[in-house]
Amino acid sequence: MKLISYVHHGQAGWGIAHGDSVVPLHNAQYPTLLSALQAGKLEGIAAEARAPAIALADIQYLPVIPTPGKIFCVGHNYEEHRIETARDKTLHPLLFMRVAESQTAHLQPLLLPPESIQLDYEGEIAVVIGKAGRRIREEDAWDHVAGYSAYNDGSVRDWQKHTLQFTAGKNFSGTGAFGPWLVTRGEIADGAELTLETRLNGTVMQHTTTASMIFPIPVLIHYISAFTTLQPGDVIVTGTPGGVGAKRTPPVWMKAGDQVEIDVSQVGVLVNTIVAEAG
Amino acid sequence: MKLISYVHHGQAGWGIAHGDSVVPLHNAQYPTLLSALQAGKLEGIAAEARAPAIALADIQYLPVIPTPGKIFCVGHNYEEHRIETARDKTLHPLLFMRVAESQTAHLQPLLLPPESIQLDYEGEIAVVIGKAGRRIREEDAWDHVAGYSAYNDGSVRDWQKHTLQFTAGKNFSGTGAFGPWLVTRGEIADGAELTLETRLNGTVMQHTTTASMIFPIPVLIHYISAFTTLQPGDVIVTGTPGGVGAKRTPPVWMKAGDQVEIDVSQVGVLVNTIVAEAG
Repeated sequence: MKLISYVHHGQAGWGIAHGDSVVPLHNAQYPTLLSALQAGKLEGIAAEARAPAIALADIQYLPVIPTPGKIFCVGHNYEEHRIETARDKTLHPLLFMRVAESQTAHLQPLLLPPESIQLDYEGEIAVVIGKAGRRIREEDAWDHVAGYSAYNDGSVRDWQKHTLQFTAGKNFSGTGAFGPWLVTRGEIADGAELTLETRLNGTVMQHTTTASMIFPIPVLIHYISAFTTLQPGDVIVTGTPGGVGAKRTPPVWMKAGDQVEIDVSQVGVLVNTIVAEAG
Repeated sequence: MKLISYVHHGQAGWGIAHGDSVVPLHNAQYPTLLSALQAGKLEGIAAEARAPAIALADIQYLPVIPTPGKIFCVGHNYEEHRIETARDKTLHPLLFMRVAESQTAHLQPLLLPPESIQLDYEGEIAVVIGKAGRRIREEDAWDHVAGYSAYNDGSVRDWQKHTLQFTAGKNFSGTGAFGPWLVTRGEIADGAELTLETRLNGTVMQHTTTASMIFPIPVLIHYISAFTTLQPGDVIVTGTPGGVGAKRTPPVWMKAGDQVEIDVSQVGVLVNTIVAEAG
């Protein structure tokens, strides 16, 4: 299933995408995809879908999960990016967090704030948790995955470097693009090798496969759940490969009007246009 | 006003503390302190309090705000602690985040997880936001403050040092103590010098005043709101002074049975006992 969150005629909803249309799945009991994940009812709700389909052209996408309880992002999780950022190898995943308000959606503006010109892309694969768990063993980790999406972990590099902690530069409003949809776990074999590619105005800027991940998805789930309970709807943004704009010579910063695409095989293509935010 | 969140006879509520009792303020419209803050109705609800008082001895405290939308913590915000951690001076505040699930409350266990023995205290002053704002000017910052509380930013030091980012070590469940109550802004003059002291089993481990803060509260609000909209109920944990256990010779780690107190003048004393968590 491909599940999307959206607004249609001013009403927020969610549903299952087929081709060029979406069949609404929301109801009073499950108004959001998050509420359906929390109830563990995705399959059942989808099986009972009866509402008439809406054209995808008529909706505005929302972030796949607009208000996750937690968004953990993994840094330096592909060897090529670790090397370009001159970071030491670590025995454990490097984690930082995003707040929900920092997100944006497929085909919605990705915001360049007036505080900086150093807006950079980071193409990533997002994992959405489907089942709660604490201290999850690696061999059980896949059972906690609801599915996958694409993520653009848009980064304001000068603010990211104000101090040792990345928080500020990773949390500007409207910089974290999440979409277009959730491809549920059943569609992709556990641990299947996925291709991840970032294109800026059509030019390939990042290209890798999940075979190059330093800490694969089960390791991330095991590590994070050691300290916190992973809940349905929580998001793990699994890291970006080499090729970020900041490490090019000269650096490449995204400008108003640029189009950026994050293409994840078997998942989909997340497309955003950069819009300069009014100060 | 001193506002507390609590559980009484299995029911969550919130109210206004006077002496040894609390007058419940929750109702169907404002079931939580957070909901009242979001509605901007604190003063009005408190003025209409009619429920009979409950003895504080009969309640279980909850974190002042059990589910803040965002918890920003400030690192190295007192000169003595910056020096003991050998961190460079920065032009901007260092920020990391906590998730709501990492919190615990006044007189509730502060958890020592089985993954580590390096559990450390960090006494801090918490600021709770009362009015939403983005790009808040320093001179307007106090108007966005709902009030103050004490916070123990309990830190699992070895996990904090797994990588450059503090996330893992700062987010073990039940390690961030927040309480006992919210003292509303009207009770403390804006910018008044407050004393902050941490005691471990009665011994003073940290002692400072807010005069030693590197980035005072208005600067923190200005900086954070540059990248994100601060919302009512959001929490800024403003940093710990010198004297943490990790930097003592030999290091001092909190053990099961230890009692730790965070005492903030004009605010109150947050008390927790360390409890070893089952693995």
